Amino acid sequence: MTKRVIIVGIPGVGKSTVIADVHDQLSERGIDTKMAEFGKIMFDQAKLMSINNRDQLRKLSIEQQKTLQEMTANMINSFGNDVVLIDTHLLISTDNGFYPGMPIKLLNIINPTHLILITATAQEIQSRRENDNSRQRDLFSIDRIERDLRLSESMISTSSIITGCPFYIIQNSTNQIQGATNAICKIILGK
Amino acid sequence: MTKRVIIVGIPGVGKSTVIADVHDQLSERGIDTKMAEFGKIMFDQAKLMSINNRDQLRKLSIEQQKTLQEMTANMINSFGNDVVLIDTHLLISTDNGFYPGMPIKLLNIINPTHLILITATAQEIQSRRENDNSRQRDLFSIDRIERDLRLSESMISTSSIITGCPFYIIQNSTNQIQGATNAICKIILGK
Amino acid sequence: MTKRVIIVGIPGVGKSTVIADVHDQLSERGIDTKMAEFGKIMFDQAKLMSINNRDQLRKLSIEQQKTLQEMTANMINSFGNDVVLIDTHLLISTDNGFYPGMPIKLLNIINPTHLILITATAQEIQSRRENDNSRQRDLFSIDRIERDLRLSESMISTSSIITGCPFYIIQNSTNQIQGATNAICKIILGK
Repeated sequence: MTKRVIIVGIPGVGKSTVIADVHDQLSERGIDTKMAEFGKIMFDQAKLMSINNRDQLRKLSIEQQKTLQEMTANMINSFGNDVVLIDTHLLISTDNGFYPGMPIKLLNIINPTHLILITATAQEIQSRRENDNSRQRDLFSIDRIERDLRLSESMISTSSIITGCPFYIIQNSTNQIQGATNAICKIILGK
Repeated sequence: MTKRVIIVGIPGVGKSTVIADVHDQLSERGIDTKMAEFGKIMFDQAKLMSINNRDQLRKLSIEQQKTLQEMTANMINSFGNDVVLIDTHLLISTDNGFYPGMPIKLLNIINPTHLILITATAQEIQSRRENDNSRQRDLFSIDRIERDLRLSESMISTSSIITGCPFYIIQNSTNQIQGATNAICKIILGK
Repeated sequence: MTKRVIIVGIPGVGKSTVIADVHDQLSERGIDTKMAEFGKIMFDQAKLMSINNRDQLRKLSIEQQKTLQEMTANMINSFGNDVVLIDTHLLISTDNGFYPGMPIKLLNIINPTHLILITATAQEIQSRRENDNSRQRDLFSIDRIERDLRLSESMISTSSIITGCPFYIIQNSTNQIQGATNAICKIILGK
């Protein structure tokens, strides 16, 4: 029985670090754990279609992108490890808007067993974004961060109604990452 | 035309009292009204499968539990009374998380005509929980109660989009339970 | 490739004015743009069924109303213009509750390419409602307006998960309607 754990969170909640720590902790306990980064797997699939950089990927028609996403979801569903940690997004920011990272079609293909939203306070997220100079982490106002947190709470609950599987909201407070990691490991290991 | 009224609310909103009052008020008016407590009906179904206590129920596989839930939903859908008051949950708390009480599959089987969320202020809920010593009503912080209220608002609206049926948010303020009961009876009897 | 843009917003956000301006701006650029007001098209469909006023429309059975809604959605989906601006509601207020304007069935028939929520601050909405004497714009408390704004944010994100298409939240601040119009035109024209 493979556990397929979708893990999401808006930029600045510290998702990547927590997922890496969960992977390490489960592996150390001898559990066969696979990291599945949705975006990376999708790009690998695209390479098989002779797409060699992300610019080409973006230029695909919406139909082609949807096909690629579904291929990616099918591949993730096929992994037979004990635990598959699916690193993805519920909402992907664009100018003034959002693409849904996990629409109903992909949720139904992946067929997850757990939905985990990593969260933090708006202040923590703002301060982490200020310390990160990479392009993807534009600074946002506290109001905007709070709205995006509300949207992600709403979307994780909708994803739970659609899939029928439980959802968890894990606080990843500064200097307490071990707490978040332990909570997630407990969820995955628990019956 | 049976009216199937799903009534939900987080612990401490006073759901059970309101549902009992609605049942009495409608019955007094000569309307054939049935109480359908989802958890209780599910346990009765389980007994037919030789499961005699709630511990055994919890030990069933997820597949078996889903089958039981769908049997329960089908039974509720089959009730032919004028009004069926379905007492259930949108979100069921576990450690750090929530099970969805009414996933899309169950909503589609029950095929409700009305969705009613009973709510109260976070302060009222906190104070009611403090006065209730039973195990299920752990005390929570105001922040946590407010988040759960937001989640339940979000989930009732999602359930409405899925079923196409209207949703109602009824305030059950302390000492004004008659107001909540009347509002719900009016909704059920209306047009 | 027709762009089908669903545009929603609670009363007082200034939706109608923004939609009219978007229509004019796109038309001036030579783009074949159609206004599709859901309620109006539905009433036109009803007239073909010998329903001649809105009172008769309201007296239809729920089944008949659903049929009419689906006919309307199918008609909107069939429009072959470059851009179809679909003026509709996510939530339609009734006493104590809401009808879902865009349930999953209609969303799947219309098959939109963009979901746009027009919003404003609760204070702006309250003040606009106070200046509008028509019956439909009852005054509401700030608390109630804030709750309805939260519900509409939640429902636009659910609609995005269901359709797989992106959603946008556009602030229509007083005296800055041009900003809202420009933002929406940019979204529609952008790749």
